[in-house]
Amino acid sequence: MGKLLSKLRGKSPLVHHITNYVTVNDCANITLAIGASPVMADDINEVEDMVSIASSLVLNIGTLNNRTVESIILAGKKANELNIPVVLDPVGAGATPYRTKIAKKIMEEIKLSVIRGNLSEIKTLYGIKTQTKGVDSVDSISSNKNDFIKTKNLAMDFANKLDTIIAITGEVDIITDGKHIYSIKNGHEMMSKVTGTGCMCTSLIGSYLGSGKDNLAAALAGVVSMGIAGEMAFERLDKCGGSGSLKTNIVDAIYNLSEEVIVKRGKIYED
Amino acid sequence: MGKLLSKLRGKSPLVHHITNYVTVNDCANITLAIGASPVMADDINEVEDMVSIASSLVLNIGTLNNRTVESIILAGKKANELNIPVVLDPVGAGATPYRTKIAKKIMEEIKLSVIRGNLSEIKTLYGIKTQTKGVDSVDSISSNKNDFIKTKNLAMDFANKLDTIIAITGEVDIITDGKHIYSIKNGHEMMSKVTGTGCMCTSLIGSYLGSGKDNLAAALAGVVSMGIAGEMAFERLDKCGGSGSLKTNIVDAIYNLSEEVIVKRGKIYED
Amino acid sequence: MGKLLSKLRGKSPLVHHITNYVTVNDCANITLAIGASPVMADDINEVEDMVSIASSLVLNIGTLNNRTVESIILAGKKANELNIPVVLDPVGAGATPYRTKIAKKIMEEIKLSVIRGNLSEIKTLYGIKTQTKGVDSVDSISSNKNDFIKTKNLAMDFANKLDTIIAITGEVDIITDGKHIYSIKNGHEMMSKVTGTGCMCTSLIGSYLGSGKDNLAAALAGVVSMGIAGEMAFERLDKCGGSGSLKTNIVDAIYNLSEEVIVKRGKIYED
Repeated sequence: MGKLLSKLRGKSPLVHHITNYVTVNDCANITLAIGASPVMADDINEVEDMVSIASSLVLNIGTLNNRTVESIILAGKKANELNIPVVLDPVGAGATPYRTKIAKKIMEEIKLSVIRGNLSEIKTLYGIKTQTKGVDSVDSISSNKNDFIKTKNLAMDFANKLDTIIAITGEVDIITDGKHIYSIKNGHEMMSKVTGTGCMCTSLIGSYLGSGKDNLAAALAGVVSMGIAGEMAFERLDKCGGSGSLKTNIVDAIYNLSEEVIVKRGKIYED
Repeated sequence: MGKLLSKLRGKSPLVHHITNYVTVNDCANITLAIGASPVMADDINEVEDMVSIASSLVLNIGTLNNRTVESIILAGKKANELNIPVVLDPVGAGATPYRTKIAKKIMEEIKLSVIRGNLSEIKTLYGIKTQTKGVDSVDSISSNKNDFIKTKNLAMDFANKLDTIIAITGEVDIITDGKHIYSIKNGHEMMSKVTGTGCMCTSLIGSYLGSGKDNLAAALAGVVSMGIAGEMAFERLDKCGGSGSLKTNIVDAIYNLSEEVIVKRGKIYED
Repeated sequence: MGKLLSKLRGKSPLVHHITNYVTVNDCANITLAIGASPVMADDINEVEDMVSIASSLVLNIGTLNNRTVESIILAGKKANELNIPVVLDPVGAGATPYRTKIAKKIMEEIKLSVIRGNLSEIKTLYGIKTQTKGVDSVDSISSNKNDFIKTKNLAMDFANKLDTIIAITGEVDIITDGKHIYSIKNGHEMMSKVTGTGCMCTSLIGSYLGSGKDNLAAALAGVVSMGIAGEMAFERLDKCGGSGSLKTNIVDAIYNLSEEVIVKRGKIYED
């Protein structure tokens, strides 16, 4: 796992983002911090050219609109044609019918390497009726054993159906390629008080995807990196520290992340 | 006043924003920091659905354009229909004829619970000719007694005409429902060196609006919370600290804000 | 050089930006930190009115799209008509044909006071085939003496052809009006790990342009201010500090910048 980080930093892959305007700056900065090179471009006249020189494509529907949906589809298809990996962040799927419709459209028209979302978003895409509270999950990965097993089965079934990696992040993260399934227990609950920690996690996955050929490993590495950064960011807060400092600390922690730290702090369990 | 904060944190209301792309990230983070849940969505295909699941709506015209104006009107009308409170931040009204026209259109077509702006913006909406310097006020709430009384009369008259709460923020803040009028003397002048402190204040008002039924109390609570956060943020700066740290500290201060601090530091005067 | 800063702070010029949504918040905050007043407005219905009350115009194509291109041209022409200085940041020119085409269109239709870009972007505009890696330069200002001379000749020739100031930023910065040429050796390599340090530099140039009549001096002052801020930001990092803190520190350093510091730390060489 740790080796992926030095590979990423050695290559510094160009990661093309079509993303929302709420967290776009944080996504760019975390992509730089991990060692990749972000570019944000969403105009229909250039997305195909931009993705053609990129090593991976991040699609994030956080503030989707008609103009960018067209660009998303065009860029995604070009990426597929060129075998450039694509990760989808279906932000807020389930909150409104339009968002759900567009997320499904992307899922149907583009071959995705990884989908990362919270449980409400993933349930929505899988076809289970739920109601995402804006961009926040109303479902949580339950510690109740039966519910936990249900969620894992859903994730594996979804991964198999789409032949993709499903990454559900929350208190516990679940990542599966349909054959193997992993839980990650890093992170800190205070991360939910910073907007865009999900989006940033997706950008990290995109960065790892751009530097290797193993999509499952990229998803695991992205999620565990974000979780560890959240923990370290929390530990560094002083007594007046709050969610503003936490955001800055997360970027710092990713910048200073090393293979040793990933190996030492990572809590990845195969189930 | 302090009680409103625990009520807000208990409910964690969903606050739908249609806002500008300059300060949107800060608005989302301060909304999370105070204890609410922000969602930013501006596409015409989903704004009515999004506002329907929200507890309040924040309209901010900081970077308005033809596409979002239509969404603003649609979302506002839906909010009115469902009795969801709406706060308007008329950023830059008075700087250009277009901005003034759109701000007035919103004011005429949508029933607003609160309007928060600087003195130039509020004067413009009230119909007094002035020239907003971009997004900054050229008018200041004068310490000259006669001018101060004029401003208060303007605010009260405007609040009565529109049956809304008017909040004018500046060196001294004035808040009125047309019957009662309050001054708030919290805040620090250095806050004007951080972009979006006005927008963030409006998001705080939106957060309080989403968790209670008293619009006047929500406006007072939002403005006093922001002012106190600005003071605490300034006090925490070290000798190399500047406006970059101040922004982070403001979010931290809101995150750590307590009812005790509001009661202890709040400088609210009824006139 | 130092005198320009007090002049800027005395005047607090309004700097109209039409810029990208990735780094727009940082551009606004650094413009405030240096002492100017930013306004971001890109709608076709108001850009001419907005630029008319501004002291300078910043054009940045970081996330250009059809809607804003039209606004850029309109605002630029109005600025020319009113003798308001215009600075162009051709972000990513060379990465896609569309971006190159639009950057050249702006260059042809609008009289520019300053163009600031990295070496790949400037080479592209000059007409030399290169491939910008997203928004990052693939060309570096070589320490090889012959290459360095070639780059300087290119810059001078370009400045003469367009009758403008060319500012190429990188490890070493080159600034020329076509007659005189300067190198600046401030800055720190870690600045490349923060998105938007180029954009922020352009905003600083725009701020200086808005407060004086000497375009060459404004370009030099903007570039040297940014470089010094980057150095001071790096020196202030603690052992857990990374690129997140660096960004905050850069804004703080600009806020606290003084004429004495510019004189003491500035490394400007006339060649």
